[in-house]
Amino acid sequence: MNTHNAYALRARAQHARRHGHAPYGLGTSLAALPARPADSGEQGSEKPEQKNATARRHPLADRHTNARLAYCEDSVKGRFEAIAPALKALSAVQHLEDFPNLAQNIARERLGYALPQGILDDAWVAGLDLKALYAHCAFSALKAAAAQFALDIKNQLEQVQDTRNFFLDCGFHAVDISPCADGRLKGLSRYILRLPLTSLTRRKAYAGALFDVETDVRHWVATELRRFREGVPTTADAGTRYLKIAVYHTSSSDPCHEGCAAHGSNEAKAIEAALERLMQFRQAIQNAFCCGASTDILLIGVDTDNDSIKVHIPDANGDLSAYRHVDNAKLYEETAGLSGDRARAAVYDAIRAASRKDGWGAGHGEPHDGMRRLIANLLVNNFSQIEYVNDLYDGRYPDIGHAERYISVGDGFEEVQMRNVAYYAHLHTLEEGVADMDVGIKIFKGLNVKHGLPIPVAIHYRYDARVPGARERVAEKARRVTNAIRARYADLAAQGLLACHLSVQDLPTGSPIESLED
Amino acid sequence: MNTHNAYALRARAQHARRHGHAPYGLGTSLAALPARPADSGEQGSEKPEQKNATARRHPLADRHTNARLAYCEDSVKGRFEAIAPALKALSAVQHLEDFPNLAQNIARERLGYALPQGILDDAWVAGLDLKALYAHCAFSALKAAAAQFALDIKNQLEQVQDTRNFFLDCGFHAVDISPCADGRLKGLSRYILRLPLTSLTRRKAYAGALFDVETDVRHWVATELRRFREGVPTTADAGTRYLKIAVYHTSSSDPCHEGCAAHGSNEAKAIEAALERLMQFRQAIQNAFCCGASTDILLIGVDTDNDSIKVHIPDANGDLSAYRHVDNAKLYEETAGLSGDRARAAVYDAIRAASRKDGWGAGHGEPHDGMRRLIANLLVNNFSQIEYVNDLYDGRYPDIGHAERYISVGDGFEEVQMRNVAYYAHLHTLEEGVADMDVGIKIFKGLNVKHGLPIPVAIHYRYDARVPGARERVAEKARRVTNAIRARYADLAAQGLLACHLSVQDLPTGSPIESLED
Repeated sequence: MNTHNAYALRARAQHARRHGHAPYGLGTSLAALPARPADSGEQGSEKPEQKNATARRHPLADRHTNARLAYCEDSVKGRFEAIAPALKALSAVQHLEDFPNLAQNIARERLGYALPQGILDDAWVAGLDLKALYAHCAFSALKAAAAQFALDIKNQLEQVQDTRNFFLDCGFHAVDISPCADGRLKGLSRYILRLPLTSLTRRKAYAGALFDVETDVRHWVATELRRFREGVPTTADAGTRYLKIAVYHTSSSDPCHEGCAAHGSNEAKAIEAALERLMQFRQAIQNAFCCGASTDILLIGVDTDNDSIKVHIPDANGDLSAYRHVDNAKLYEETAGLSGDRARAAVYDAIRAASRKDGWGAGHGEPHDGMRRLIANLLVNNFSQIEYVNDLYDGRYPDIGHAERYISVGDGFEEVQMRNVAYYAHLHTLEEGVADMDVGIKIFKGLNVKHGLPIPVAIHYRYDARVPGARERVAEKARRVTNAIRARYADLAAQGLLACHLSVQDLPTGSPIESLED
Repeated sequence: MNTHNAYALRARAQHARRHGHAPYGLGTSLAALPARPADSGEQGSEKPEQKNATARRHPLADRHTNARLAYCEDSVKGRFEAIAPALKALSAVQHLEDFPNLAQNIARERLGYALPQGILDDAWVAGLDLKALYAHCAFSALKAAAAQFALDIKNQLEQVQDTRNFFLDCGFHAVDISPCADGRLKGLSRYILRLPLTSLTRRKAYAGALFDVETDVRHWVATELRRFREGVPTTADAGTRYLKIAVYHTSSSDPCHEGCAAHGSNEAKAIEAALERLMQFRQAIQNAFCCGASTDILLIGVDTDNDSIKVHIPDANGDLSAYRHVDNAKLYEETAGLSGDRARAAVYDAIRAASRKDGWGAGHGEPHDGMRRLIANLLVNNFSQIEYVNDLYDGRYPDIGHAERYISVGDGFEEVQMRNVAYYAHLHTLEEGVADMDVGIKIFKGLNVKHGLPIPVAIHYRYDARVPGARERVAEKARRVTNAIRARYADLAAQGLLACHLSVQDLPTGSPIESLED
């Protein structure tokens, strides 16, 4: 599929949705793509082909992938957006005699799946239970999205191998990323940094990017043991390193309100806190494990208005500074008019220039060669995403604030990586994560409850099928957390405004999602 | 100090307590030993010297250590038992004009420490706050006990090294013990099995001995990495093994009521559940880590009436059975009249006989040589404890049920190892451990609240000082758990019947206990 075709396909899909029928001829994963009414079209994408032709083009942007990701975003978000209008249509006909059949026909046509028959059959008694239907549809959309992403990941196997090799080539045998849990960073790996899920990467989000040092040290230990015992992915004497990355975020158009809530939308505080954690992590390993136990650290900032990144450049000692970084939005502007080769050279120049910075943020020399190549790659990858936001949203997302579709509790659906699709509360117990959860519930009171719609809460945990009894234990955990959530938000639960969905999943990426009986 | 002298000392200490004055001449650690009134004397210890002379003597029992442990138990429990009578004395004089001075004199004489001046000064207004004083004294007794144990551990360094070498000699580089959390097993290592705390041993209690497989796999990983990276305690190619031991318990005199509450006092269920966990642990390691990742497992039962053990004997494949074990109470009887050498040979014979058992519980051959020596050693060690209970309690504890002094929450005071001194709720969040905590509160409603006394809850967590920020994080955790406990038992807290004490401690055994401001 060449670039032009990809964009054309996306345009066709949008056209089809505007006219209320399902798109066609787009392969298996599209069979269930829902229709979407005309009024939910995005800004600035009216005539994609023409717009794309005139938009700024960066020589290093990957337009093929952009088209694939645009289609993915469109269909996933479309599934969620189709729910309310379809249910509205059902509501209008709920008192007709043949309602259950009529309703299933509408659902199949506009949503792509059937609804629970019982709810439809009982509608004549006490009215249609639209809250229950909404919850059912939201979780159906989520499961379909996860399945679609899983399929897409399978089709990326070659790219995964390339990325693995690239990391190893840069001297990293593990890359552990901790972004903030904010829903606007949910597309970090897949969209913003364009890194596929590989066996080398690990991603765990925490409010304010304040990752848990003790948990991360344990992951480091497990990684190192595998190298020593099995020589995977590199042998212990290979001299490769463990890389820990923290990712904070800001909003360039409304920095004092739409930045990171955990740090009161204060960028300086967010940076300082992330730097402190990174340093604690590095120090913990050095102190607790003797000779040669060293790790690399890296800090990245994301402007959630347009997904452009700032990469803080380590010096030759691996030390970071709040004031020594490359601003990729600026670099994109400066390199957009160059040839591919010159643009690439300019990226390396920018890293070098940052390393030689005087005054505030001055460091001791340049980072090692592998680190330079990794950073250059991240910057170039991010060019594609900057162009993506330029193309589809005129350089700034329309939803600069919260517009999440569900609350993700627990380990989260690692396969579903997309901006603003979920508010993420990574918790093992509500007791520990109650602050995060309270924030999520508050956001959804504005997004859903205000309109009489329930809050979809997807409680999801991973288990290791190789460990006997692990699935039962993790299912028990999901039930415990669900009960704690229902007890804390008892008023919402009593009104049917808190819809919980429990699921578990085996560890390997792309394993099926197993729904649990509540 | 020879054996006779040790027992004589204990008798002198008891005599001193009976006559209401502090004992003397027993070294530094005794300076603060509290007086104890006559009515709290133990059964069957009226004339220890004469009784000891006539009691059955086992050739392999270590009477020197028995004397030391008896003194330790006596002084630690004495500290707790002295509290109520001393406060009763204070209560009687609380309306005298010079009460504060009078009270401090009584406290120093009978408890060995001063009381909070403010509470004494304010007594004339609203009466003496005896609940607050009781809580203060309980935590003072606990801290003094911990300090005494820590000192004792320092004096055992030689024995620690011997035990380490013995484990290594038996082919074990780590011994991970999970007993039930029941307070009657709190003296497992120190009293029942006579194993000092070494760097090779790890002890973590769980209700019903149902240890967490995932946590234990992580400990295995950390242990193996240290072997690979640092060659500590053995190098990776040494062929030594990781040993996981589970410990269940029963009560021979009232098996249907005073057994393990987590398994409804059903011995068969307790054994089955522990065996299943052990198997899951072994399987988890074998499945998740390739070639050579094997562990040994062992199951031990304790009769909490008299501290005698049953050791389930692994076969040549390392497999266990509920029906193949050596009953040490029986073995003690059979070997008490023999010479030391013949008794020792009889222990090995008993292990061999169990291995050759037919029918139910038949296994495939004998365990490996190191395992046989380990088991023999545990059985011989336990002879001393059987004799201890014979000598001091006529072969059966007077408190066959619960008689704990405080609830221990969190990581627990590993140094304080003594039967029935604490009810232990090992929890990281109340949400996960709420069932254990509810049981503890219920027990203490009977023990303390019924008499108008508060429940002392000691919330205690360990941290790794080598990890930056670890102390602050663990202190935060202690505060979170405390708040959760206060919220759940709000009625008790409001009446001043829930006294919480927060503390943290660095990892190395014997580190000082740091009390936290609440």
